[in-house]
Amino acid sequence: MSLVPGTRLLARLDALRLLFDGAGVSALLVTAPANVFYLSNFRGTAGMLLVGADRASLIVDPRYISSAGALLESAAGCPGMVTVEVASSYEETLVGVLADCGANPVGFESRHVTVSRHDWLVDALAEFHIELLRTTGLVEQARIVKDVYELEKLRDAGLRISRVMSEALAGLRPGRPEREVAADIDWAIQAAGFDGPSFDTIVAGGPNTALPHARPGQRELEAGDLVLLDFGGVLDGYCVDLSRTASLGPPTGEAIAWHKAVFEGHAAALEVVRPGVTVGEVDSAARRTIEQHGLGEFFVHGTGHGLGLEVHEAPRIGKSGPSVSAPGDELVLKAGMVFTIEPGVYLPPRGGVRLEDDLVVTATGYGLLTDVSRGLCVV
Amino acid sequence: MSLVPGTRLLARLDALRLLFDGAGVSALLVTAPANVFYLSNFRGTAGMLLVGADRASLIVDPRYISSAGALLESAAGCPGMVTVEVASSYEETLVGVLADCGANPVGFESRHVTVSRHDWLVDALAEFHIELLRTTGLVEQARIVKDVYELEKLRDAGLRISRVMSEALAGLRPGRPEREVAADIDWAIQAAGFDGPSFDTIVAGGPNTALPHARPGQRELEAGDLVLLDFGGVLDGYCVDLSRTASLGPPTGEAIAWHKAVFEGHAAALEVVRPGVTVGEVDSAARRTIEQHGLGEFFVHGTGHGLGLEVHEAPRIGKSGPSVSAPGDELVLKAGMVFTIEPGVYLPPRGGVRLEDDLVVTATGYGLLTDVSRGLCVV
Repeated sequence: MSLVPGTRLLARLDALRLLFDGAGVSALLVTAPANVFYLSNFRGTAGMLLVGADRASLIVDPRYISSAGALLESAAGCPGMVTVEVASSYEETLVGVLADCGANPVGFESRHVTVSRHDWLVDALAEFHIELLRTTGLVEQARIVKDVYELEKLRDAGLRISRVMSEALAGLRPGRPEREVAADIDWAIQAAGFDGPSFDTIVAGGPNTALPHARPGQRELEAGDLVLLDFGGVLDGYCVDLSRTASLGPPTGEAIAWHKAVFEGHAAALEVVRPGVTVGEVDSAARRTIEQHGLGEFFVHGTGHGLGLEVHEAPRIGKSGPSVSAPGDELVLKAGMVFTIEPGVYLPPRGGVRLEDDLVVTATGYGLLTDVSRGLCVV
Repeated sequence: MSLVPGTRLLARLDALRLLFDGAGVSALLVTAPANVFYLSNFRGTAGMLLVGADRASLIVDPRYISSAGALLESAAGCPGMVTVEVASSYEETLVGVLADCGANPVGFESRHVTVSRHDWLVDALAEFHIELLRTTGLVEQARIVKDVYELEKLRDAGLRISRVMSEALAGLRPGRPEREVAADIDWAIQAAGFDGPSFDTIVAGGPNTALPHARPGQRELEAGDLVLLDFGGVLDGYCVDLSRTASLGPPTGEAIAWHKAVFEGHAAALEVVRPGVTVGEVDSAARRTIEQHGLGEFFVHGTGHGLGLEVHEAPRIGKSGPSVSAPGDELVLKAGMVFTIEPGVYLPPRGGVRLEDDLVVTATGYGLLTDVSRGLCVV
């Protein structure tokens, strides 16, 4: 796997440290796996990163100590970062590191730490008079704008996934079960050089296209079906995501009308994307257009979501109500943000259409990362 | 996807309600996806279940309202369960449901709710004088012992994954990159009828076998390599997990010695499995044997982990230090528990061996779910 150079990690850590004062912390415990990876190039099913004012410690259990050590000695290792091996539990080891390092108060990622872990740590740190402070989105704030290295990966990934889509569309045939088509797509995703799919591949035929999050089943594709394909890949850690809807044989009038509404909603959203616009405005552009086609009530999800080390990350392109996931629809687009535009309409049990592309916000508008015809593909 | 009958869900909910008094709650908010699925048959990327004394509400967002409604009307729907559609956010909708239902205090799963979501809910519920109480493992406590339906699924899955392993071992050849082998295995997992892999498939050759959690890379398998395969599948929601180590051509003396130690550690662990034994005793049996071979320091992980709706769930078969994940090594085995036995040794940069099977605890000992020769497979 190709990784960002270690010196770049140093810059990321320094940018993060600039936020410590504002958050009122002298160190940050990073536990969200994507954030740990972003700052250290370490990727495992476990692992914590403690970022202090002048040092950073990667805490890993014995399963990972060898690979983490090799990483830090490589060109992808962050200069100065050290590993700490977990003895009996992550929490206990962390308390030991914190007791030694003298940082206080210590920030943690309140959107990624469970109440149970937090209770345990607060209790264990009390004897050292170390205070844990909530932080939200410090690392995500940096991740939302992609750097040159990341954009190159995402562009490469966008082109590769587009080729997989073109081939998958061309290969659709009546008689094949959805699951078989999905297995072929997953194989093609790996053959295209991806680490793997970025989420469970969706192949939905006929009535199943009416389910936004359909799971491929045993149903065989039939002549006359709409077929919705939605899949993505992870390339060196970076995720892309692409959807198209095809018709097996001549489409019905209804299918043409649905597709036209979604196509125009998609175009309307793209039209407004540029720095300075809010995500709510992008969502509204798609929504208003689909409403004008009389299908507003069937567009039951947001217009898009950010892409990067996670397949769903900030910015969320949609309306947002009161919840824990700020910021909402007032978030302003900046150059370097990468997200999907994916309006859809779903009319159970008849069917549905979704059309999804990935883009990067540029200085004056946007650049598409994905490249497959957006017309209703008739196979 | 085949699902447990809805009437069985009713029994699961009733069993859960019997724990309410002990936990001091009059309702439980279930948010861990595997727990929501266990109690409702609903599976999505989001969704909450509120279990009250006499009703259960499945809260889903508009993307899932149609599939959740269809589920509840089917034979797999829990009688009496109702859906609630999220208007603007899950948290806000939940507060509305709680304010209406009158339950107080309300338990939540403290190992699965983030500090951030908890803060938000505590604040929003204050005006209704509703108290949120921490609970741990109420649903997991039921899930740890599998019922007849679940055991049938796991047995079926164990046989299927064993066939995939036998074919994968037979197909190993020098010159093939690890990633290509992994892509073929993933395809075979789907072709065997699984929903998909239960975790990222591991194909590690030569020095990479020394990394317990290796990711398949571009390295081509070479004659003389050890090759470690570790993969699993999800069948109707239930996960299995299987590892074997093969030698491409005649194994070295070192490889034979490593394999012998792991093989005997594996056998020693199986030997002690029966109801009434602690998980610590099972772990010690494997560990002691590998120590007797002089390789104790290279066995860097636990002996096994539970299997079910998650590929890592209770019981954990290992030593455990002070941490948030109770219970530890004093947990006593019961008939119906399902877990892996997977000792391994890792000697970077030379190589390593792991040998993993899945079993169910029976009234008098254990039954293996997986069935592939445990010898060092020479290809």
